[in-house]
Amino acid sequence: MKLAKRGVVTSTVKKIAKDEKVNAERVRNGVAKGKIVVMEKGEEVCGIGAGLRTKVNANVGTSTDFARVEEEVRKVKAAVEAGTDTVMDLSTGGNLEAVLKRIIRASRVPVGTVPVYSAFVNSFKKGELPREEDILKAVERHMQLGVNFVTVHAAMRRKGLDLTKSRIMRIVSRGGCMLAAWMMKNEKENPLYTNFDYLLELAEDRDVILSLGDALRPGCLSDSTDRAQMHELITQGELVKRAHERNVSVICEGPGHVPIEKIEANIMLQKKICSGAPFYVLGPLVTDIAVGYDHISSAIGGAIAAKAGADFLCVVTPSEHVALPRVEDVVDGVVAMRIAAHAADIAKRMDNEVDLEMSKARAELDWRKQFDCAIYDKKAREYRKKRGSRSRACSMCGDYCAIKIMKELEGVSAHSKDEQYRPGKH
Amino acid sequence: MKLAKRGVVTSTVKKIAKDEKVNAERVRNGVAKGKIVVMEKGEEVCGIGAGLRTKVNANVGTSTDFARVEEEVRKVKAAVEAGTDTVMDLSTGGNLEAVLKRIIRASRVPVGTVPVYSAFVNSFKKGELPREEDILKAVERHMQLGVNFVTVHAAMRRKGLDLTKSRIMRIVSRGGCMLAAWMMKNEKENPLYTNFDYLLELAEDRDVILSLGDALRPGCLSDSTDRAQMHELITQGELVKRAHERNVSVICEGPGHVPIEKIEANIMLQKKICSGAPFYVLGPLVTDIAVGYDHISSAIGGAIAAKAGADFLCVVTPSEHVALPRVEDVVDGVVAMRIAAHAADIAKRMDNEVDLEMSKARAELDWRKQFDCAIYDKKAREYRKKRGSRSRACSMCGDYCAIKIMKELEGVSAHSKDEQYRPGKH
Repeated sequence: MKLAKRGVVTSTVKKIAKDEKVNAERVRNGVAKGKIVVMEKGEEVCGIGAGLRTKVNANVGTSTDFARVEEEVRKVKAAVEAGTDTVMDLSTGGNLEAVLKRIIRASRVPVGTVPVYSAFVNSFKKGELPREEDILKAVERHMQLGVNFVTVHAAMRRKGLDLTKSRIMRIVSRGGCMLAAWMMKNEKENPLYTNFDYLLELAEDRDVILSLGDALRPGCLSDSTDRAQMHELITQGELVKRAHERNVSVICEGPGHVPIEKIEANIMLQKKICSGAPFYVLGPLVTDIAVGYDHISSAIGGAIAAKAGADFLCVVTPSEHVALPRVEDVVDGVVAMRIAAHAADIAKRMDNEVDLEMSKARAELDWRKQFDCAIYDKKAREYRKKRGSRSRACSMCGDYCAIKIMKELEGVSAHSKDEQYRPGKH
Repeated sequence: MKLAKRGVVTSTVKKIAKDEKVNAERVRNGVAKGKIVVMEKGEEVCGIGAGLRTKVNANVGTSTDFARVEEEVRKVKAAVEAGTDTVMDLSTGGNLEAVLKRIIRASRVPVGTVPVYSAFVNSFKKGELPREEDILKAVERHMQLGVNFVTVHAAMRRKGLDLTKSRIMRIVSRGGCMLAAWMMKNEKENPLYTNFDYLLELAEDRDVILSLGDALRPGCLSDSTDRAQMHELITQGELVKRAHERNVSVICEGPGHVPIEKIEANIMLQKKICSGAPFYVLGPLVTDIAVGYDHISSAIGGAIAAKAGADFLCVVTPSEHVALPRVEDVVDGVVAMRIAAHAADIAKRMDNEVDLEMSKARAELDWRKQFDCAIYDKKAREYRKKRGSRSRACSMCGDYCAIKIMKELEGVSAHSKDEQYRPGKH
């Protein structure tokens, strides 16, 4: 951010601009103003924010019930293959540092974490709460290990915590709840808030993005957009200002569970109060009752949110609220959220080039090209293989494929002669 | 409609009003004004339109590649179990009348069809096009067999057909393309348009709903909201007026493939031009490249459309554009679209009672109640069974479940003693 403010167009900015077919000077300006953040991991660059493609993050990580490192590594690889832009390691089971190292090594794309998990899980194992310095050290350690962004729930304050008392579901953020436990037991203010200047120092030194977590995000529609959420949002806004003054790039995390009619207002408020910092939403889920199918509920919310200005969508898998996801659940979640992001980008950027290519391929019944254009082609190929048609059309319409019939009528046949449409063949 | 105009509140109207917790007089008024249609099949009633819950339709039916009646009957039963409000039999393979009879018998919910399929498929088998009277007879026959609604693509006219010439994908409606073939080969106007008065007579006699099909719906984003689509829409508006004058209830079918930013305008136009008649949308799909996942693309579009005023959402399955769906694809499609419909209803009707119940159950970690509140509980139960936690929480957070931790902090434990949260247990 410092370089961008000085007017320097770095090679990372150039690469992002080229990838996204936007002007490099606009990207630099976005970074300087805090409206874009940039990440780099090996050959991969990732820009998140105003005027750029909506990005998607996939969560992986062990839990106390399933602490299988190899499975998490497989999730990382599958998520990247399915097109996620970043991954977050949210492990809470097993040797956390060992898991994180493996995930950083396995991931081609930028990696984020929630360092408070390490501090709390390691202390809990000894039956105690971490000391203030343990929490800060965990943040530093994650940065040393080479993560690209860390979530710090620095905006939850004692007043905000008090305001959750009238909720149906007080706190559903895991990191937020750990910090809440610390604040309540110690009767102290949030250590990530009181030490925010130190966190900025760490982030500046290591060139790591801070993601301002939303500890008080609503856990159900009824709690959405309430006073607790707004209290934390106001503090997020304050922290964004402080970060930008120190030349530290930040993103802001947001809800959660939000009914459709309140999504746009949520995004507008967040953007306004947080000086246009890139907005990272979890879903949002547009109903509470889609358990087993929350990837769909969150794809609906994500598309509406991204259209309204959200920049970064966190994947919700079908197993959310019930179980740690399997590899295939992560893939289903990534694909669903990528569909949401892409649909919103069509609306925001008015760019539907690949959709146009797909449509032309469809009009030609050119299956190879259709699969090439697909957002994720595996399932479509399987359908075609296992439930294919005897004709060149798909097996849904078979001989009565509208595209085929219209081609025949126009006297244009894209098919070889023996494949031509003949009424009465079957 | 005639009774409603006379002020009679029929038992069907009463039942619908009771089911939906709305005023019966308002439902009657909606029917009288053509803004609500009512269907009845055995014990089941279904109201579609202004102020009522958004309804969902699932398509079933054989194709020339998969003409397996038993599989289609299984789809009907699975779709109804998954909560579809109606089913449409779109069969084009095998003995169509025999299939339809089986489906009508198998379905507890109202059944719709596209009678032109029968007329054309049966003629095509003889290597010819149907005569005008064959097409009309097919409509009458379907009504005799006891269907609740029939799609008639009566609004596609020669001028509209001409306007498709500049499209990427001219016609993607199967019925539309059959009629287009007829119109082009015979150089005549659409027989469903020229005989619309006769169709109204049939519908009035048999008390069957006419669904004004959109033969010229766009098959890709690029063709969306173009002159061809608008030309057909204007004719739909004319036909709605004629139907209402004859006391025939109609619904209007709409797109299709529509980018997010154009959905609201599409619904507004349709409602305005078609005198507020219930609007039945296929998706819409918000991107062309989600092949294999088009249930998600259409759930996004469906939610936005229903929020904007669409009343009836047609399910798109994951196998759309590739293959005739399997039973599980139909179920996945129904659940996805029900999530979309429900999310929109929360926004439209401001009613989230079951969501509130779910949230309370979640706050109590009461799994039985959670499954009871779920929109479709099968998958969630499976997750819990196969990927459950040793604790009462879910296996995603396990010991670090925010809900559990907050409960402990508050000194309220919903768990039996041996299940209590103990830091350091694992």
